[in-house]
Amino acid sequence: MIQLHEVALSGNCHKVRMLLAILGLPYKSVAVDLASGDHQTPAYLALNPFGQVPVLVDGHTVIRDSQAILVYVASRYGGERWWPQDPAYLARISGWLSTAANEIAAGPNKLRLHHKWARPIDVSQVETLTSMTLRVIDDTLAQTRWLAGSEASIADLAVYPYLALSPEGKIDIGSYANILRWLGDVRCLDGYIGMPGMHV
Amino acid sequence: MIQLHEVALSGNCHKVRMLLAILGLPYKSVAVDLASGDHQTPAYLALNPFGQVPVLVDGHTVIRDSQAILVYVASRYGGERWWPQDPAYLARISGWLSTAANEIAAGPNKLRLHHKWARPIDVSQVETLTSMTLRVIDDTLAQTRWLAGSEASIADLAVYPYLALSPEGKIDIGSYANILRWLGDVRCLDGYIGMPGMHV
Repeated sequence: MIQLHEVALSGNCHKVRMLLAILGLPYKSVAVDLASGDHQTPAYLALNPFGQVPVLVDGHTVIRDSQAILVYVASRYGGERWWPQDPAYLARISGWLSTAANEIAAGPNKLRLHHKWARPIDVSQVETLTSMTLRVIDDTLAQTRWLAGSEASIADLAVYPYLALSPEGKIDIGSYANILRWLGDVRCLDGYIGMPGMHV
Repeated sequence: MIQLHEVALSGNCHKVRMLLAILGLPYKSVAVDLASGDHQTPAYLALNPFGQVPVLVDGHTVIRDSQAILVYVASRYGGERWWPQDPAYLARISGWLSTAANEIAAGPNKLRLHHKWARPIDVSQVETLTSMTLRVIDDTLAQTRWLAGSEASIADLAVYPYLALSPEGKIDIGSYANILRWLGDVRCLDGYIGMPGMHV
């Protein structure tokens, strides 16, 4: 059975949980206790030398990085619906996976780490990046229902958690009407599951 | 013909140039002058609302983000050799695309922006992230010839430029023997092209 090494309150882990739930794939959750340093043990670093969560183990296959796990699960278990073959569509999805790994990680995710767990950051610089990123996402969602086009994709799942968690980062998303509409659409996906502490 | 909107000294643009050259795909380079604000014009923002380079235009297809462009070019023009179908291999590649978008962008890339163009950063914090990232990459390349396995992939092209440019970020990569070996291997790929100002 698939094992997911994860932290309950991690948005990166929630991306994967959502896809597994949507596809109806059973898995065993293995809790990683960051406070105890579980992620820095030799056994964990052998799974992911970056010491990050989540890690997915499927038989002999070990995949690190939340975006990579979405690609793995979608391409192995999701069929054409979740892993399209069209290069332009794949690339639009990949562009949003990069945004999740870059701007979302360096923006909304960092603001949450700061306001929820006192991680030191340059608040002004991170807020500026966050506003720019939310503006682009809102403008995108004014033109298409989902981030990469007319269908939900792993792009939406990769971007969703830290936007849904934005109140914990003291981010006011109330003025982004298209993002608010899209957050609701994600929550209506068949199989969607929420996360403890998710307020919107 | 493919058009690549690019900046000569951008490592993100160089990723794409390398793959186009390796695949022997002709393209027209469209220079984006950041100093003149070309990347903030309405016409450019219509191509990429993030205002970043590169952007690739192929007929009616417009792709933003260097990792996404690698996915597009590899999956459309690279065949199984450059766009494998195996989910585990695809996911290993995707993990490194995330690393390029996250740790490499926030580490070696930022140090270069700081030391070459005086971009203000938290030097100590960025150097720590850079050292951690280089250590993981070096350890990976101690186990496999290429980042995602026994063959070169777009993972290597995505990670290469800002490691090759590390002297411009005052990063001493001399102690990372496996990275040095791998930089040489990338430069020996059929079709490899260098970049102005690339020292290693």
